Amino acid sequence: MQTDFLAHYDASQFEKPSVTVDAVLFTIRDGALQVLLTRRQEEPFAGMLALPGTFVGIQEPLDEAAARALKTKAGLEGVYLEQLYTWGDPGRDPRMRILSVSYYALVPESRLMHPAPGTALYPAEEIVQEPLAFDHAQIIRCGRERIRGKATYTDIAFSLVGEEFTLPELQSVYEILLGQKLYKANFRKKIADKIEETEKMTSGNAHRPSRIYRKRDKE
Amino acid sequence: MQTDFLAHYDASQFEKPSVTVDAVLFTIRDGALQVLLTRRQEEPFAGMLALPGTFVGIQEPLDEAAARALKTKAGLEGVYLEQLYTWGDPGRDPRMRILSVSYYALVPESRLMHPAPGTALYPAEEIVQEPLAFDHAQIIRCGRERIRGKATYTDIAFSLVGEEFTLPELQSVYEILLGQKLYKANFRKKIADKIEETEKMTSGNAHRPSRIYRKRDKE
Repeated sequence: MQTDFLAHYDASQFEKPSVTVDAVLFTIRDGALQVLLTRRQEEPFAGMLALPGTFVGIQEPLDEAAARALKTKAGLEGVYLEQLYTWGDPGRDPRMRILSVSYYALVPESRLMHPAPGTALYPAEEIVQEPLAFDHAQIIRCGRERIRGKATYTDIAFSLVGEEFTLPELQSVYEILLGQKLYKANFRKKIADKIEETEKMTSGNAHRPSRIYRKRDKE
Repeated sequence: MQTDFLAHYDASQFEKPSVTVDAVLFTIRDGALQVLLTRRQEEPFAGMLALPGTFVGIQEPLDEAAARALKTKAGLEGVYLEQLYTWGDPGRDPRMRILSVSYYALVPESRLMHPAPGTALYPAEEIVQEPLAFDHAQIIRCGRERIRGKATYTDIAFSLVGEEFTLPELQSVYEILLGQKLYKANFRKKIADKIEETEKMTSGNAHRPSRIYRKRDKE
């Protein structure tokens, strides 16, 4: 039954674009949002920094292509990637029409301890000021905005602190994700119903001991 | 300089997918969220309801392709579309590998008064229970969720009431977008800083007259 219309459909009348995936992997390190980039070995943009990416296989789901890009270009497996945006400016690749379906993830720094050779973390705010391959600076900016939004209306910040944390630690993560300083009193009011006290305190050292908290389970 | 690497790049080694765009156009009519669909004339899925869509031209930006789909399939121009998600399941089109970059918009019903022949509005919650062409039911569900989210953390609801409105009117739009009834007191507390009173009241008729409000300008 399906062969009937396949006979009438002339795929060759449409010139097709190529399709790639690119992955924007964010983490917090040294008190700043950082992004994983690789140094390109080949033209175009040889020698420049770029997001890990790859061409999508003709029978490969997009999510699997993105996971494969992270594995082959950055040596990383098991990262949960979410689709970010699809980039289709006809001039974005000097070779030919190439669309990029971008993905992003926000992971604890511990997941990125052993990136592949030629791959490293760069501060997200600063590196997008530099010339990067293709439109990758724009893709990183888009991912940055998505994370800012997610930090506002979801609990992603908690995925970047341990199971137990102090309120200054949690506030610092929120400030980095939101890209702005927060008033302590306002911050504590906003997160009050998301957290609960443990019995524990930090040892203090140079500082006053701080109460240790954990995320409250949803009922 | 660019010819150098073009010579080394063998595009033919990668079999390419086809790429389409599909537009999910939502409005509120008869107190419900509705979506614009067209009846397919051709195989595959001839005779079934589908989103307005088209193949992307080889030099055509994705946004322009989406606008062209709305114009040619639904007779609509000047609708501001936002990208929703890119669908790439290898089995989603029986012809061959075809990706779809989906777009969505939420527009007042007045924008949709004269849809093209074969095009009509359908209640969004109900129609996704019916068999639709391709994965279009899934795309509509995704758009539905996006709108629910946007209604929570942006002011899109205001784009669906006039410049002046009563609080019951505004609450009704919020309830439709969020897909749930709201407590009047909670609702009014949440939107208090987004609106301001006018001097006017509704004439009343069968009801008590209601105060007319407008959206507060951001300072």
